[in-house]
Amino acid sequence: MKKLGKQTYELSKPISIIAGYGLVGRKEGEGPLKNYFDDIENDDKMGEKTFEKAERKMFYKATSAVIRSAELSKEDIDLYVGGDLMNQLVSSNYVAENLQLPFLGLYNACATMTESFIVGSTFLETGGPSNVLCATGSHFSAAERQYRYPLEFGNQRQSYAQWTVTGVGASVISTKQKSSVRITKFAIGRVTDFGITDIANMGAAMAPAAMETLSTFFEETNTNQEDYDLIATGDLGKLGSDILKDLMAEKGYDLETNYIDCGHMIFNIDQDTMQGGSGAGCSASVFNSYILKKLQTGEFKKVLLISTGALMSTTTNQQGDSIPCIAHLVMFEGGVQC
Amino acid sequence: MKKLGKQTYELSKPISIIAGYGLVGRKEGEGPLKNYFDDIENDDKMGEKTFEKAERKMFYKATSAVIRSAELSKEDIDLYVGGDLMNQLVSSNYVAENLQLPFLGLYNACATMTESFIVGSTFLETGGPSNVLCATGSHFSAAERQYRYPLEFGNQRQSYAQWTVTGVGASVISTKQKSSVRITKFAIGRVTDFGITDIANMGAAMAPAAMETLSTFFEETNTNQEDYDLIATGDLGKLGSDILKDLMAEKGYDLETNYIDCGHMIFNIDQDTMQGGSGAGCSASVFNSYILKKLQTGEFKKVLLISTGALMSTTTNQQGDSIPCIAHLVMFEGGVQC
Repeated sequence: MKKLGKQTYELSKPISIIAGYGLVGRKEGEGPLKNYFDDIENDDKMGEKTFEKAERKMFYKATSAVIRSAELSKEDIDLYVGGDLMNQLVSSNYVAENLQLPFLGLYNACATMTESFIVGSTFLETGGPSNVLCATGSHFSAAERQYRYPLEFGNQRQSYAQWTVTGVGASVISTKQKSSVRITKFAIGRVTDFGITDIANMGAAMAPAAMETLSTFFEETNTNQEDYDLIATGDLGKLGSDILKDLMAEKGYDLETNYIDCGHMIFNIDQDTMQGGSGAGCSASVFNSYILKKLQTGEFKKVLLISTGALMSTTTNQQGDSIPCIAHLVMFEGGVQC
Repeated sequence: MKKLGKQTYELSKPISIIAGYGLVGRKEGEGPLKNYFDDIENDDKMGEKTFEKAERKMFYKATSAVIRSAELSKEDIDLYVGGDLMNQLVSSNYVAENLQLPFLGLYNACATMTESFIVGSTFLETGGPSNVLCATGSHFSAAERQYRYPLEFGNQRQSYAQWTVTGVGASVISTKQKSSVRITKFAIGRVTDFGITDIANMGAAMAPAAMETLSTFFEETNTNQEDYDLIATGDLGKLGSDILKDLMAEKGYDLETNYIDCGHMIFNIDQDTMQGGSGAGCSASVFNSYILKKLQTGEFKKVLLISTGALMSTTTNQQGDSIPCIAHLVMFEGGVQC
């Protein structure tokens, strides 16, 4: 692949997304994107005893479904890359054990879906593996008690807070089979830290990371917002995406017309999620349903997905440290002739 | 790169390790490998207020030192890959922020050093980046309180327990510059779970993962232990490496002559670490000092490093789940003519 700048690379092989699967929970399934998701789980625990076991079950279901949807068996998959928000990426590890696939655990918080596409397509680019499974997800109730408070505590949510998406997005990417959707370029994020220490205010923490990656990508590809049908950030929420628009405007880029945030669009305003969705499952499930379907039909021809991650450690946060953030960008082309 | 089997790949480009740096704490610096380490830190807190901040400082020091040792500046490094044992890989993220390099966070627990070499060399193989920084580490006191008990609790250690290594190993790998040490093959691990639920008994949990990866590599490359000067596992400790020897003997492979375990050899028996060292910093620091130096001189010509990781989530462990484990293998060739 070709290095276009410090952060941006252009793939030389055609890397096709041959299947995508977006599975979400009930609340997400009642939002504006309900008709796009492949599966909606109404039981938050999916019949399991704990939220963590439910998260794992979502992963089992989505990864098995996407492999079936690609008309492959798990023996055809050469490599599984991905992660989740649970400490030690334990959901992904149980799934890797279940699938018995070679596995590389990735973690960049809510930027893990684009990180998976970046690592997966780089492996495909070498000509070594032919089919790679990428999957990422999160579960509201499991994440809340790990990162903030147990639900039983009943804490009041801040007006600038976001709601961790219960959902898993999974994709099979391939050089062996072709599809109308390709991964063509990516930009690897740099960690930015703007001094935010409030673990509820993730949009403000992550917006500078998104700005850094997106503006660098524009510079290194000599393009701007007008060259794309859609620019989607992962989970900045309403507040964070407003901050991003301001930051990009300062750099001379206008995000008023073709920009969305997956977290902002996954919930309706009357669903009481404050600024919208967040979590590794947010951009993963929205990309693998809403965005992917429109790339497949050719309604979107060029899309940039910038998943945003807040590397929010409760330990270092309690020690007064601010929240480092990262954003990885992947460029997709849709409606491609096979 | 060429796929040799389900898990094994052969690199086609010469990927050189142009610098390595092994930094450890005082206890490790009093062990049998003391003359090999590049730096020994006598203060467990390195002048910081907390163990977590000390871990971060070790990373700053080792990554800066390895870049200097490669006679490069940080602007010459295209990509930083790696992780640590802290939740959210927070030490690595702060270092990535400090270095301002494109960063991909990796997590396979104590198998993260070999995972970094695998991902880093795959990126180099594409011809995109030219110099990649790989780094992994751990800190005894930070890890103990996150995974088991705070030190102040003063719990009695089990006879089969291991001691998390305080140390960081960092390497710069390159296609642009050549050295006498190359990464030539690797095998990506599969997650195995043999039902161990005791968070102190990591050697027993991880030995089957090491067996699975090593025996698969032997099969897929049509080689056996006699084809290598050294076979080193990451941190099985004495008990775990004895289990591995038994498991490999059952498969027809004899590990009695040229096999070591980094965890077993990093401490002396009178240092009260029970079965020896563990942690992401264990194979990272031992490889980047002892093993790398002997590859550079050509004393070792072919080495297999199999870092072993226990994906030990305290949450799922308390829910009765067993510990999934993984092992990634990297093959190095030393004394190569540049």
